[in-house]
Amino acid sequence: MIPEQIEHLGIAVPSIEEVLPFYEQVLGLKCYAIEEVADQKVKTAFLKVGEVKLELLEPTSPDSTVAKFLEKNGGKCQIHHIAYKVNDIESRLAELKEKGVRLIDETPRKGAEGLTIAFLHPKSSAGILTELCEKK
Amino acid sequence: MIPEQIEHLGIAVPSIEEVLPFYEQVLGLKCYAIEEVADQKVKTAFLKVGEVKLELLEPTSPDSTVAKFLEKNGGKCQIHHIAYKVNDIESRLAELKEKGVRLIDETPRKGAEGLTIAFLHPKSSAGILTELCEKK
Repeated sequence: MIPEQIEHLGIAVPSIEEVLPFYEQVLGLKCYAIEEVADQKVKTAFLKVGEVKLELLEPTSPDSTVAKFLEKNGGKCQIHHIAYKVNDIESRLAELKEKGVRLIDETPRKGAEGLTIAFLHPKSSAGILTELCEKK
Repeated sequence: MIPEQIEHLGIAVPSIEEVLPFYEQVLGLKCYAIEEVADQKVKTAFLKVGEVKLELLEPTSPDSTVAKFLEKNGGKCQIHHIAYKVNDIESRLAELKEKGVRLIDETPRKGAEGLTIAFLHPKSSAGILTELCEKK
């Protein structure tokens, strides 16, 4: 498949407000968007460094998967997933299925920032939650 | 400070051999170097995607910090740190110290791939182990 680049890193955080000062005042990055993704039950904040975005993910409900991920990690910030930029995501997913890769999303769906996305299952992606995204 | 880009992502893995097939055969990336970093007690494997390197970190001793990190995570792969590329790392560290940022390395040291590196303390970096690196 060969992804072009890392599109973003998803970082689970208990509170965007509490961690933004590190990213903005210490690292000097700029938060350029805050967006709520209702079906994932998260609020997201985006910053960019080089070609990669950092996507801070704050759960908006205790039953969001990000809330559960944080809970498992003692409530501490932790990198949640790596998202790779691909082209023709439908063909990439078909290719992966043929290789026996387990997918969370068998068909692509809408993600934050208008991207078309699909998650691979960590059991098939060396234990790291992995997302593919395409800007259609 | 404003880092230029993410230089690499450190990913803790129990076994490089076991996870490489995902990175090489599923994602289609290429492992271009395997290196042992004796003072960190890790073996590292490098792959590149876009401008970012993935650094797989396998502990070579049970008392390596990466071994302890894996243990805390039930022995499963997990992203261990984010490394940002900066210039003039000595000035960046002085700048951070002045801001009250806690540093693991007060002075830069040699890392893998001949880079000059320094780690920030996760308590001062929003819970994510953060590295600065410079290619001198």
